[in-house]
Amino acid sequence: MEFSSKLLENAVYEISQLPGIGKRTALRLVLHLLRQPKEQTERLSFALQNLRNEIRYCKNCYNISDVEWCEICANPKREESLVCVVEDIRDVMAIENTGQYTGHYHVLGGKISPLDGIGPGELNIEPLVRKVEKGVVKEIIFALSSTMEGDTTNFYIYKQVHPYGVKTSTIARGIAVGDELEYADEVTLGRSILNRIPFENSLKS
Amino acid sequence: MEFSSKLLENAVYEISQLPGIGKRTALRLVLHLLRQPKEQTERLSFALQNLRNEIRYCKNCYNISDVEWCEICANPKREESLVCVVEDIRDVMAIENTGQYTGHYHVLGGKISPLDGIGPGELNIEPLVRKVEKGVVKEIIFALSSTMEGDTTNFYIYKQVHPYGVKTSTIARGIAVGDELEYADEVTLGRSILNRIPFENSLKS
Repeated sequence: MEFSSKLLENAVYEISQLPGIGKRTALRLVLHLLRQPKEQTERLSFALQNLRNEIRYCKNCYNISDVEWCEICANPKREESLVCVVEDIRDVMAIENTGQYTGHYHVLGGKISPLDGIGPGELNIEPLVRKVEKGVVKEIIFALSSTMEGDTTNFYIYKQVHPYGVKTSTIARGIAVGDELEYADEVTLGRSILNRIPFENSLKS
Repeated sequence: MEFSSKLLENAVYEISQLPGIGKRTALRLVLHLLRQPKEQTERLSFALQNLRNEIRYCKNCYNISDVEWCEICANPKREESLVCVVEDIRDVMAIENTGQYTGHYHVLGGKISPLDGIGPGELNIEPLVRKVEKGVVKEIIFALSSTMEGDTTNFYIYKQVHPYGVKTSTIARGIAVGDELEYADEVTLGRSILNRIPFENSLKS
């Protein structure tokens, strides 16, 4: 792409560094901003820089939070001894949306992925082990995505916390509610048969 | 969406104001920026603000340009008397990419669209008419998209410049090179028969 302006080229380049945004889309976004009042671009730049510079994480669960302890960790009604291990804030939001979970979270900030240069040291695994060691945490639910990286991460944490006698589980994998069996992949369908649940339990929710 | 941080919510909101970007995508982009070095967010914010504040348009064709006269208008090899009327800079880039056009451009900055509150006064139509009046422009090629708004804009400009005896044309509409006839829409196919070209001409390029 040949641009008639360096300023334009630079703005398009920086936007196209974001994941899933190519040069064409970046140009479309920049031209949109040019048609809007200056204040919109100012607010956008300011909001991004502000977030990046002022970002803080909850001291207990490592979720993004404006205060030392996030709302969930600060809520005395939530069970401190039950911890759900997730990858990032989106998973916390998704589980909170269900309204079914009453424990705490622990946000790892990623998964172990040697190919991307992410080892256990890059993730918030150590603080979780400390909480288990202190006896604060009695049960851990693994809610990472079921990829090789997710399984590796689960297993790594499991090996660290198992000696302390903590209860561990992973969220159930199975056919989504409302899905047709014929379209399910065989791994999921196979697991859903192996890990079948008593019929009475399925009536509960 | 419930956010655990006002800073995060604000950044997601501002990004989701861009066209085609919803809250989920905005959150994904923001989380990506948080995983990158601070400098990337700084560069992005700076590039956007810089563009928005310093943006300049070519005095002759109204294309985005860092200097008074854009590279095309300043090039003595380009025909000043032939002007291609386009909507925005993307159209200029697309036509320049073909390497077939040797004239100037005139960037309108949009199309007449009463529903969006865009009248002829909001577009750069007046300066084009002045150039025709002065006798600088001898031929105009309309290259707006063939929608109702595009056709209206073409006709509005045509009525203004026609009295000065300027030659006007629109780019050819027809079946794209390499396309199958059976998939073409009937309007395009119909026009391509009405506006057929001598076979010898089709051998040229």
